[in-house]
Amino acid sequence: MLSRRDTLKVLLGGIAAGAWRGRPVMADTSKPTPPAIGESPRAYRGAHVVQPLPFDPAKLKGLSEKLLTSHHQNNYGGAVKRLNLIQQQLGEMPKDAAPYQLGALKREELIATNSMILHELYFGNLGGDGKASGSIVPLLSAEYGSLAAWEQEFRRTGLSLGGGSGWVIVSYNPHEHAVHTHWAGDHTQNLAGGMPLLVMDMYEHAYALDYGANAKAYIDAVFQNLNWDAVNQRAEQAHAGKG
Amino acid sequence: MLSRRDTLKVLLGGIAAGAWRGRPVMADTSKPTPPAIGESPRAYRGAHVVQPLPFDPAKLKGLSEKLLTSHHQNNYGGAVKRLNLIQQQLGEMPKDAAPYQLGALKREELIATNSMILHELYFGNLGGDGKASGSIVPLLSAEYGSLAAWEQEFRRTGLSLGGGSGWVIVSYNPHEHAVHTHWAGDHTQNLAGGMPLLVMDMYEHAYALDYGANAKAYIDAVFQNLNWDAVNQRAEQAHAGKG
Amino acid sequence: MLSRRDTLKVLLGGIAAGAWRGRPVMADTSKPTPPAIGESPRAYRGAHVVQPLPFDPAKLKGLSEKLLTSHHQNNYGGAVKRLNLIQQQLGEMPKDAAPYQLGALKREELIATNSMILHELYFGNLGGDGKASGSIVPLLSAEYGSLAAWEQEFRRTGLSLGGGSGWVIVSYNPHEHAVHTHWAGDHTQNLAGGMPLLVMDMYEHAYALDYGANAKAYIDAVFQNLNWDAVNQRAEQAHAGKG
Amino acid sequence: MLSRRDTLKVLLGGIAAGAWRGRPVMADTSKPTPPAIGESPRAYRGAHVVQPLPFDPAKLKGLSEKLLTSHHQNNYGGAVKRLNLIQQQLGEMPKDAAPYQLGALKREELIATNSMILHELYFGNLGGDGKASGSIVPLLSAEYGSLAAWEQEFRRTGLSLGGGSGWVIVSYNPHEHAVHTHWAGDHTQNLAGGMPLLVMDMYEHAYALDYGANAKAYIDAVFQNLNWDAVNQRAEQAHAGKG
Repeated sequence: MLSRRDTLKVLLGGIAAGAWRGRPVMADTSKPTPPAIGESPRAYRGAHVVQPLPFDPAKLKGLSEKLLTSHHQNNYGGAVKRLNLIQQQLGEMPKDAAPYQLGALKREELIATNSMILHELYFGNLGGDGKASGSIVPLLSAEYGSLAAWEQEFRRTGLSLGGGSGWVIVSYNPHEHAVHTHWAGDHTQNLAGGMPLLVMDMYEHAYALDYGANAKAYIDAVFQNLNWDAVNQRAEQAHAGKG
Repeated sequence: MLSRRDTLKVLLGGIAAGAWRGRPVMADTSKPTPPAIGESPRAYRGAHVVQPLPFDPAKLKGLSEKLLTSHHQNNYGGAVKRLNLIQQQLGEMPKDAAPYQLGALKREELIATNSMILHELYFGNLGGDGKASGSIVPLLSAEYGSLAAWEQEFRRTGLSLGGGSGWVIVSYNPHEHAVHTHWAGDHTQNLAGGMPLLVMDMYEHAYALDYGANAKAYIDAVFQNLNWDAVNQRAEQAHAGKG
Repeated sequence: MLSRRDTLKVLLGGIAAGAWRGRPVMADTSKPTPPAIGESPRAYRGAHVVQPLPFDPAKLKGLSEKLLTSHHQNNYGGAVKRLNLIQQQLGEMPKDAAPYQLGALKREELIATNSMILHELYFGNLGGDGKASGSIVPLLSAEYGSLAAWEQEFRRTGLSLGGGSGWVIVSYNPHEHAVHTHWAGDHTQNLAGGMPLLVMDMYEHAYALDYGANAKAYIDAVFQNLNWDAVNQRAEQAHAGKG
Repeated sequence: MLSRRDTLKVLLGGIAAGAWRGRPVMADTSKPTPPAIGESPRAYRGAHVVQPLPFDPAKLKGLSEKLLTSHHQNNYGGAVKRLNLIQQQLGEMPKDAAPYQLGALKREELIATNSMILHELYFGNLGGDGKASGSIVPLLSAEYGSLAAWEQEFRRTGLSLGGGSGWVIVSYNPHEHAVHTHWAGDHTQNLAGGMPLLVMDMYEHAYALDYGANAKAYIDAVFQNLNWDAVNQRAEQAHAGKG
C-alpha cells in the first residue's frame, strides 16, 4: 500500500493528470483553472462548464439535429447551469437553517449533478457506427449468456420507461467485477459504486421531437449510433483506473 | 492504451485478482466459485452471499449488539436473499412479458443490489475509533473549506432524513476528481459514477431500537465509531484502481 | 347519522346513481356492465375503458391535434390498458409469492391508476376559453391572497417540472376545507384525501411535440384552454358530494 | 345544479359547518380562528395545530405507550411543525427565485402535508377492538371477493414495505365508486382523488421500538387495534359528503 503522503500526492496529482474520466470521448475543453485562495470552497463554487457535443449533431442516423441540439442545450445545459446555482446557494445557507431546507437542496444537487454526468456519458456514447465490438462484448456475454440476451433485456428495460423518465445504464460493478444493466426511473438512481459504461436516456426529451411516443423507434436509433469504442474505453478505464 | 486483447485479459483477470473492491475491510470470505458451464448466466444466478459483520457488534460505542445484529441479519441479510430471488426471477421472465413487468423487477433489483452494497460499505466503515486522519482529511477540507465545515453539512444532511429513510454518502467523483457528500432518500439514489468512501445509513432500522426518533444521537454514535482507515483505503483504491 | 343498513344502501346506490365523479366533463360513455357472478372480483377484473377526448382536438389554441391525439391514445390509453393487465396479473399472483413481488406490482398499479385518473381530469379541464370565473375564483383568492398570486405559484411550480415529469394539481382538501396547489413529481404523488379540481400535466409528452423544451410556452397554452366550468363543477361536487 | 352564488355559499359555509373531515374520530380541538385581515394568505400562514391522540396510548394491545407517544410527538408532531415552517417560507420566497427553489419547497410541503394527514388518519383508525363490521365489510368483499382475500393482500402489501417506508391505504375511489387498497412507498404517494378510509403506517418508526424488524408482528398488532367504526364513518362521509 502507498504511504499516506504518497497517496495524497497521487490523489491530488490525479486532478492534473486526468485519471479516470467519466466522459472520455467528450471534447477536450478542460475544466476552468481552480479559483485562487480566498474564493468559495470547491463544493460551493458552482463552476461547472457546459461541454460541447462530442459529435456533429447533423450526422447521426435517425436522431435529428434539432432534437440533439435542444437536448444538449436545454436539458443538459440547463442541468449544468442549475447545478452551479444550487451549489452556490448551498454555500450561502445559514448555519441555523432547518435540516429540511438543506435536505431539499441537497436533493436538487443530486438531481442536477447526475443529470450533468449522465448526459455527458450519453452524448459520449453516441456518434458511433453501432457495431458492437471490443472487450465489452465478452463481458456482456459472460453476464447475460450472449450479447443478444443482454440487448433484449436492455431494450425492454428501456421500453418500460417509455412515456416517462429514466435511464438504462450498463455499469461496471467493482463490487462484483462484472458489468450489469440497471434500471433508473430518474436522474437520481444508480448502481452504488457503479461506473457507467453505456447509458441510454429515456426521458421523453430524448426522443419526443423525432418519434413522439414511439420509444421503440428511438431505442432502435440509439443502437444505430452507439459508439462502442467509447464504451470499451470506459470499461478499460473503469478497471485499470488510469486514463 | 492497452490493446483489446490485453485489456480483456486485464478485465477478466481482475475477477481473480481482486481489483478495486467496494468493501475492503469486510471479512475475507470470498464469493462462491463460479458455477460450471451449463448453469444460468451470472446476471440471473442469484448467488450473492451474506458477508459477516467486519467487527464485534458487542464492542461499538453507543450502538447496541441487539441493534447491529438485527440490522445485519434482517435488513442487510434480507436484501441479499431478496436480490438472489429477484435475479433468478429475472432469468425466468417470459420473452413476451410486458415491459412494465420487467421494469418493475429491474427496479426491485436496483433496490436490493444497492441495499446490499451500501450496507456492506456502512458496516465496513464502522468499528473504528472515530478519529479522522489520513488522506481523506485534506480531500474533504479542500472540498468544503475545512473538515468541520464538511462534518456540519454531512450531519445536517443526515438530520434531514430523520424519521424516514436514506443514506448520506461521501463519494469520490472521478468526473470531478473530488470527494463530495451526497444525499440519498432511499437505496436507489447515488452519485452517477461515484465511488462511495463513507456511508451513513439513515433508515430508521439503523437507530430506532437504540435511540427511538433521536436521529441526532445516532449520528453522534456513528461518528464515534467511524473507521477512517477504511475510508482512506477506499479513497486510495478508488483512485489508484488497485487493491 | 345514517343507520348501517341505510348507509350501505346509499353507498351501493351511488354506483348506479353517479355520485361524485372525478371526470365530470368527460364524454357520457358509461363503464361496462358489471360482469356476472362467477367472474373475477372487481379488484382483479381489469375492465377499465379508455374514455374519448371530451373536446375536439383540432380546436384547441396552441396545442396541436397531433400532440393531443398522441397524448390521449399513447400515454393515457396506454395507462388504461396497462392497468387492466396489472390488475389481472394481481389476481393471478400465487398465494406464496414473495412480498416484494406483490409490492412491485401494487406500485405499478398505483402508477397506472393515477395516470388514468389524472389524464382524464387533465383532458376534462381543457377545451375551455381560459377565462377564470365561478366559485373557484374566490376560493383560490382566499387561499393565496389573489388569483394572480395563485397563478404565479401554479405556473412556477409547473416550470420547476420542465424537462422531467410530474403534475401540478389544485385540490380541494377536505381536511382543511380549502383549495391548494400541490406539486407532483410523477403519477404517484398526490395530496392525501385531496380531490383534484384543476390538473396540469407536466410530463414532456404533454408538450414536447409542439414546444420542444419550452415548458413556459406550453403552460401559456394550457391557461388559454382551461375549462373553468369543469373546475367549478368539480369544486361543487367535491364539496357537496353529489352529481 | 346549484347556482354559482349558492354554491359559493355552500362551499364557504362548509368551513364553519364541518363538512367531510379526514379525521372524524380525532379529538374535538378545533383549528385556530382564522387570522384577521392583513395577515398572510392561508396558504402561507402555517397555522396547523398538532392534534392529540384520539385514544389512551397506554391501552392498546401490542403497541407500547412509549412507541405510540414517540410516534405521535416526534413523527406526526414534527411533520406539523415542519409544515408550518415550510408554508411560511413559501410565502417569503422572492418573486425571482429559480423554479427549482420553489419546486424543492413544494415537494417538502407535500411530504409534510401528507405526513400530517396520514398520521391523523392512522391514529384515528386505531384504538378499536379490531372486529371488522359495518358497511365497509360488504364493500371490501365486493372488491376483493371476500374480506379474507382483501386482508391477505393488504397485509402482504404491508410486508413488502417492511424495513423501509410507506403506507398501505384503503381508499374510496369516487372515480370508480369502489374501495381499493393502494401501496405507497412514502408519504407523497396516494390514489389521485381517493379518500383514505383505513391507513396503516409502514415507516419503521411505527414498529421498530416494539418489534425491531418484525413487520409481521406489527401488522398483527395493528389489526388487533383497528377501529372499524372510524373506517365506516369515513366511508359514509366520503360518499355522502356531509358530516
